Amino acid sequence: MKESWKPGTMIYPLPAVLVGCGADESEYNLLTASWTGTVCSEPPMCYVSLRPERHSYPIIRRTGEFTINLTTASMARAADWCGVRSGRDFDKFAECGLTPLAGEKVAAPSVDESPVSIECRVREIIPLGSHDMFLADVVNVRVDQALIDPDTGRFDLARAGMLAYSHGEYFELGRFIGRFGWSVRKKKPRGRKRKIDTIK
Amino acid sequence: MKESWKPGTMIYPLPAVLVGCGADESEYNLLTASWTGTVCSEPPMCYVSLRPERHSYPIIRRTGEFTINLTTASMARAADWCGVRSGRDFDKFAECGLTPLAGEKVAAPSVDESPVSIECRVREIIPLGSHDMFLADVVNVRVDQALIDPDTGRFDLARAGMLAYSHGEYFELGRFIGRFGWSVRKKKPRGRKRKIDTIK
Repeated sequence: MKESWKPGTMIYPLPAVLVGCGADESEYNLLTASWTGTVCSEPPMCYVSLRPERHSYPIIRRTGEFTINLTTASMARAADWCGVRSGRDFDKFAECGLTPLAGEKVAAPSVDESPVSIECRVREIIPLGSHDMFLADVVNVRVDQALIDPDTGRFDLARAGMLAYSHGEYFELGRFIGRFGWSVRKKKPRGRKRKIDTIK
Repeated sequence: MKESWKPGTMIYPLPAVLVGCGADESEYNLLTASWTGTVCSEPPMCYVSLRPERHSYPIIRRTGEFTINLTTASMARAADWCGVRSGRDFDKFAECGLTPLAGEKVAAPSVDESPVSIECRVREIIPLGSHDMFLADVVNVRVDQALIDPDTGRFDLARAGMLAYSHGEYFELGRFIGRFGWSVRKKKPRGRKRKIDTIK
């Protein structure tokens, strides 16, 4: 049985990413966002929605650049902390024991501890209400080499222990269910690296 | 050590939602999307990005309405299947054993098995390349009453066993880490309903 609620923000689970910004080291800052995602595959584009009152907002608006740094369970405390504290009051990198990595294609710093850092250039800012949506092109992706299988070259993001945010709570990703397309593939009797559960 | 890759779509984990559409029962369809999320809190707004060649694309474009239905581990097979099959060839509700629920504020159907269904009205369609972004207002939220604690009124989405999509793989949400804001809260010695892990 379903009951109706008033309109709200109920899409979950989401990532809890650390957004990096700043034109130089003296300005480097991080903030946490879950209002983020991919909006186009080709060209690769993404967005992050920010409240104008956040410390990073004018920095990203002025520089037109930011990074999206994925988070893991071991980064959960930092992700939560950077979501409730302000860069006006703290050097968030230092407070969280995170290492800023100078940008490659953008000036904004990446988070060295993050398994994936995505360098973004703002294409358009769309004011919506409480949040402005920063629509951006992905200009570079930096991944942790330790997650690349040296034999196969396969990038195994799952090994990082990814963090998800769902309706006010943080979780580590748990049981593996299947790969994209598994529901239409014929079963192979052997040779799988991972067991695929069949769920009715 | 980080290595640079060419630009790509690497924001994870994401939801794998079932998008419902159709002006009436004869047209009801579902498709799976992970390029979706919240873009504004007040007013509540969200988006879904769709390839124009998908069967649902012209339906949503014409009707200006869709639903976003969250998925659980027990819906993983349906979520995957509805992402690789087309409504041109199948009645996806019937094939997946899912129950269409007539819309309340929109004509598009919800998925009864989904723990949360979000009714959306398109505000703007932004062409980006491979995908068009459908920017929409949330006009109604329907939740599974079975997830509401009758004593506290608290909606416990986690009990549904939420599904996440991460870099081509599906996972169930696993270990609970903390609630939003836990990193700055003083520890209470007792009275917590859930153990909160402290992660360095």
